[in-house]
Formats: sequence, structure tokens, C-alpha cells
Amino acid sequence: MKDQSFDRAKDNVSHANLRSRRRFLAATTAMAATVAGGLTDLWGDEGREPGSPLRPYGERSPFEKTVRKNSRPGQLSGTGSTLTPLESLYGIITPSALHFERHHSGVPMIDPDKHELLIHGLVEKPIVFKMEEIKRLPSVSRIHFLECSGSSASEYQGDPAPTPQQTAGLMSCSEWSGVPLSTLLKETGVKPTAKWVLAEGGDASRNARSIPLEKAMDDVLVAYGQNGEAVRPEQGYPIRLIVPGWEGNINVKWLQRLHVLDQPAMTRDEAADYDDLLANGKSYRFSFVMEAKSIVTRPAGGQRLAGPGAYEITGLAWSGRARVAAVEISTDGGKNWRKAELQQPVLKNAAVRFRLPWNWDGNDAVIGSRCIDESGYVQPTHEQIVAARGTHARFHYNGIKWWRLQKSGELTYA
Amino acid sequence: MKDQSFDRAKDNVSHANLRSRRRFLAATTAMAATVAGGLTDLWGDEGREPGSPLRPYGERSPFEKTVRKNSRPGQLSGTGSTLTPLESLYGIITPSALHFERHHSGVPMIDPDKHELLIHGLVEKPIVFKMEEIKRLPSVSRIHFLECSGSSASEYQGDPAPTPQQTAGLMSCSEWSGVPLSTLLKETGVKPTAKWVLAEGGDASRNARSIPLEKAMDDVLVAYGQNGEAVRPEQGYPIRLIVPGWEGNINVKWLQRLHVLDQPAMTRDEAADYDDLLANGKSYRFSFVMEAKSIVTRPAGGQRLAGPGAYEITGLAWSGRARVAAVEISTDGGKNWRKAELQQPVLKNAAVRFRLPWNWDGNDAVIGSRCIDESGYVQPTHEQIVAARGTHARFHYNGIKWWRLQKSGELTYA
Repeated sequence: MKDQSFDRAKDNVSHANLRSRRRFLAATTAMAATVAGGLTDLWGDEGREPGSPLRPYGERSPFEKTVRKNSRPGQLSGTGSTLTPLESLYGIITPSALHFERHHSGVPMIDPDKHELLIHGLVEKPIVFKMEEIKRLPSVSRIHFLECSGSSASEYQGDPAPTPQQTAGLMSCSEWSGVPLSTLLKETGVKPTAKWVLAEGGDASRNARSIPLEKAMDDVLVAYGQNGEAVRPEQGYPIRLIVPGWEGNINVKWLQRLHVLDQPAMTRDEAADYDDLLANGKSYRFSFVMEAKSIVTRPAGGQRLAGPGAYEITGLAWSGRARVAAVEISTDGGKNWRKAELQQPVLKNAAVRFRLPWNWDGNDAVIGSRCIDESGYVQPTHEQIVAARGTHARFHYNGIKWWRLQKSGELTYA
Repeated sequence: MKDQSFDRAKDNVSHANLRSRRRFLAATTAMAATVAGGLTDLWGDEGREPGSPLRPYGERSPFEKTVRKNSRPGQLSGTGSTLTPLESLYGIITPSALHFERHHSGVPMIDPDKHELLIHGLVEKPIVFKMEEIKRLPSVSRIHFLECSGSSASEYQGDPAPTPQQTAGLMSCSEWSGVPLSTLLKETGVKPTAKWVLAEGGDASRNARSIPLEKAMDDVLVAYGQNGEAVRPEQGYPIRLIVPGWEGNINVKWLQRLHVLDQPAMTRDEAADYDDLLANGKSYRFSFVMEAKSIVTRPAGGQRLAGPGAYEITGLAWSGRARVAAVEISTDGGKNWRKAELQQPVLKNAAVRFRLPWNWDGNDAVIGSRCIDESGYVQPTHEQIVAARGTHARFHYNGIKWWRLQKSGELTYA
């Protein structure tokens, strides 16, 4: 039992000093100065009182304060969005409590025992499904990102956001579980004239979007599970659509109706909104796919580096078009690029964590990332996307985001 | 806008009827009887009032009541365990709020700004790391299961537990993020005589376990992230060890000290506990690996099937020895076995979701699963494990669990 009685005062103990020491990058670097004694007690009698008891349903530590930020605090509380604090996340899973919100008329309170999903229209047999019936069907689970097409909208207008949360916080990633929509449509049968499926949500605004039948029969889920438990109220409890890789709004929440049609329904949400206004006054309509995008989340705007030395550059990348093939990082505003390491496995239509060790020499730096997917698509610069779409567009912004690191260690946006 | 004004009363709508209809299994099966009209209103004016506002940090629906159950409600509240409700989970991620707990003296309240990790002993240079220093080092994220070695202990003694939660709820699975322990040990340098690393937790009990240096330098993490956010208090906030595939207790929580030694420390937690007592009175010591195991979570004990018809048999499998290669399911108590589908990707040392469509004919059935890993290890029967270890063992039970389905639809344990 020599260990339990270890006399700590005899040790010479160094404090980690990453400013002057980068042994994890170069094993030959000299060690920091030794600090003899004088440490606060680490394992003595302090903290010997029994801790808090068991809990039926856990909560995070009270020391953790990170929250979703309201993107426009002044507006009506139920009709806006909150942003995921990307700079505080680890790995690829977004904690459900921090998944971004985007509501058109608040979060409905739905009793799952009373909730029903109607499938009708150009079907052989209209059917109403109860939750227990949906849950009996063969299920699948997949990790998918969701991004609101309005993510990063202010970047179009030359009003760049100052932090990862504020510029790209309308993107989150969860393990979604549910039933393939194709399974439900095979239950009802689909008539030969069917070409589109209108999905309608049960919120007060009745958010409703038309989905091409080909996509509906491919990889769309009617999801009741999110990160292992029931879909959260803000994400569509008790069921929502997951339309992998497509803009958030079409992933209809609080799903209550699927109407099989021979043409798009041209609902308010696709006729008067969620189209991409171009510089020439025309619009892209039904621009569903969220193209390749990435963001450095650390070091990033709103943060401060303690001083020169070793850091990890990390962030998230995603693409709704094809699997992420590579993420490149520049620390000089785009003159030179280096490949980041991608957290494995890289999953289709999921967020990808990237990482690159970096040694900051203390000089000004401009840090950014670009995502390249397996289709060959390369995340564009701000200048390229504005040249293509103008500055009146509100949706599908995916330009490279630069963070400016000053000699003081302060990080702002470029 | 024809869709928004859809007159629902004109439709003939069937209710889903999975008892008599299994179109998702056999496309030629006849449809259920048509129910004309008479439905409750689905998309009319009901629920047109704006819903709840945006929230900084989300919570689950008030309709969701599933909780971790205390395994022994009578004992002191801080010194027991709570069990993950496996039968309520989807996919492979356990929601952090439902991750099992096992504490020896409650949950300490640790301020991360004051927390330090000391590495000392047979090192070139002892070092104290602060949290901000640990977080600056190159990080990794991996999805790993954790299972308490005491999981399913009552099965040894012929006291089988009645539900998945009660028999195997000391297993959970999260995406863990942190720093490889090897990185920290390379910082301190390790002397040639070093063979073990003692890890000590900061709870009142000072849970402490010895880890062979070879494992410590291989895949062990000092984790500060769990499912995207900070490790939960009950799981070791602000840092814990993740020792992939090894028994829960050695994944030391609230980690405050690593002592590099030339032999195991023989702490109370490894000398007087956490060894496997055999029938002959001798014990296995340092039996670290959690061997292949699986459990059917639906349909399972404590549940009730509505009647004959189509169901999905699903559950979780895991192995700390090698990647899960297959899961087989029997519905006749082990006479016949069928391969289940495994949710992809199958990750090393992670829980694996398995699924098999099944048509219940209404007769008695005995449902169970067995896990086979890439080492060739096959999950044993109860009889096999008892023959090998006797009935006084308390740890590492991994026998096949059978659920008995009666004609009434009731499920109990076999």
C-alpha cells in the first residue's frame, strides 16, 4: 500500500508549461523549470466528505454555463432561432440540449399517445399511423448533421459574425433513429403518377415542404430518436423528418401529415421563403442540398490565446452532396494550406471533426478551413460565393470563414 | 395551394394495423380494412396557438419519464449504482443524463479551474496539469462503451433480473473526447523500470486502480468530453480515464493523480474488491477485459406485445476483447439461431445496435441473443459461465439472457 501513503512533499513537481515547451510535438525539446514543493494539496484529506447522491436523470455540472444564443434577441420569443455553441463542442455529437433551434411559431406540446401521422393523396390506401405503430416497424439509426439554410446569412451582406456560434451555430449533429420513410410509403402504396411528397408539421405555423419522391424513397427517416432518447421537443417531438444532407427547414418537425402529390405543393415555406435570391433578381427554388462547409471552432473569434506555443486547430466540416474527403487549414489567410486529420469514421451526411497541431510563433495569423467533398466540390471563398449570388441572398452561405489572431492573442473575425 | 385547403373528410383512411398486416415484410400481403371518415382532426385549426419559446439549454419532453433506476434503493444514496434504461434507448449513444452511475462515495463537486492532475513516480519529471493545459493538447474522440464489472451480478446466483435495465443497465455508450494518456506520459517521460500506472480519483473514497503501462500507452484517454459537452458530474467531471474495453471501475472518474510504478499498487479497489471469486475459493485478479455480451432490449422482460404480428427484435452487443463480428438471435431458447443486422459502422469497443424483423405467431417463445467477436469468442450460456466460475462470483457475468414470451403477450425472464 505504499502508494496510498505517498508523501507528496518529497516530489519535485513541474507545472505543465505549454508556452515554452512542446514535448508532444518535438520529443527533444527541453523541459520547463522545476517547481519544488509549494503545491496545493491534491490528494490529502481535502474532499473526503461523501459527494452528491445518485440521480434518476442527470444534469451537467453547475460550472458549465455554455448555452444556445438567441440569434436575434429582440424578436418574438417563439419565432426565431438559437445557435449551437460550436466552439464549446467536442467530437461530432451535439448534445441534444444544445442542438440549434429554428421555429416559425414556437414549440408545440404534443402528447405522443395522441399523435398521429396521416399519409394520403396519390397512394393506394391512405393510412393513419399511431406512434406505437411507427415504433414497431424496422428501424435504423444514423448520425447526420442538420443545418438551417439561413446559417451564416449575415456573411452575405458583409456583416461577418464574430464567433463560431454566431456565424455557423445553425448546424448540429445527432444520432437519429426512426423508420425509413420508404417503409411507410410502401405501406400505403404509391400511385404511378406520384412525384412529390408534401410533409406538414404540427406547429402552429404548419411548416410544410415538398420533397421529391425519389429522395423520399431513398434515405429519408421519420425519426423518433435523437442521441439515444426521444427526439427533443425543440427538434420535433415526437416525430420529425430527417432528410439527409438537405436544408434544415425541409426536415419537418412535429410531423403530422404526408401528402403524396404529382407536383410540389408550392406552400408558403417554399414559394415565399427558402428560395435563394440572386443578384439578377431571379431566385433559385428547391435548392435543397447543403453544400460543403467547414469552420474552425478553436482557436476562433471571441477567444484569446495565452501566448505563443503549441495549439490544436480544430473544427467541424460537413457536406450534403458527398462524403467529406478532406479539410485543409490555412494560418496565413489562404496562401498556404495543410491537410487536417479527420476523426474516424467519416460518415456520409454527418459532421466531421478535424484537427491539426499548430505552433503559434506569436505573429499575426489569419486562420481558416476549407472542406472538399468526394464529388470534388471545394468550399468557396466569400468572394466567390458573392460573385455567384450577389449580396441579397439569405440562404446556403458556405464561404470560408477567417479568424484574425493578433499578437496580443486576441482573436477576431477577418 | 390545393394542399393547404385539403378536405380531409373526403379521404378513405385506414389505421395502421400491424397485427394483421405485414406489408413491410411481404409486399403482397392484403391491406387491412378501410376506415372511412370519423378520424380526429389532424391538421385543422387545432394547435394553432404559438408554442413554447426558444430555450438556452433544452430539456426532454415532459411526456418522457424514463429514468435511471437505483439498483438497491435501500442503501446509502451515494454509494450505489443506477441503471441505464436500455429498453428505452435507440441507436448506440446513451444520453448522458441516462448513463449508468456507480459511485463509492457520491459525486464530488469539482471546480475545473482549481482541478489539477499530478503525474509522478517513475517519471523523468513529475508534472501537474491544469485543465486548460490538458485541453490545449492534441485531442481525440471515440465512441466507447463502459460496463461496470458488477453488471448482471445477480444472474450468477440464480436470481435473474426481470428487465434489460435491471440485468444489464450497468452498460452505457458515449462519444468520449480527450487527450491520449500516452501524450501526458510522454510529457513527463517514463523511466525504464516503469510497468504500471496507478490512477486515483478525487471522490471521497479515492477509488484507485493500477493499469499496466502497455495499456496506458496504447488507447487510454484522459477524457473531458462526453457526447459533445463536458463529462457529466456522475461520469467524472472534469476529467476521467477511459480505458477502452476494460471494466468500468478502472476507468477512474474525477481523475487527480497518476502514479507511475514498477508493480501494481494493490489498492483496496483491486486487492479487496473487483476480483473474480471462483468456485474453488481462489480469485481471478486483474481480469480487466469485458468479454463479449449482448442483450435483447425489445421485446424483453417487463414489456407486453399487443398480439401476434410483425415486430423488430433489437438490442445491444459489445465486446472489450475484439470488434463485434456477429450477433445471433434465437426465439426458441437456443435451438435455432439467425444472424441479426448490425448498425453500421461497427466500432471497436463501442456498443453495437442489432436488429432482426420477426413475425410472432402468437405461441410461446424464448428470445435471446449471443454476441460473437472477431477473436472468435462466443458469448456463453448461463450454464457455461456458472460451470466455469461457480455461483459466488460477482463480476464479469456475460451469459446469454433469455426472455420468455407468453401467449398473452406478456414478457418475463426465463
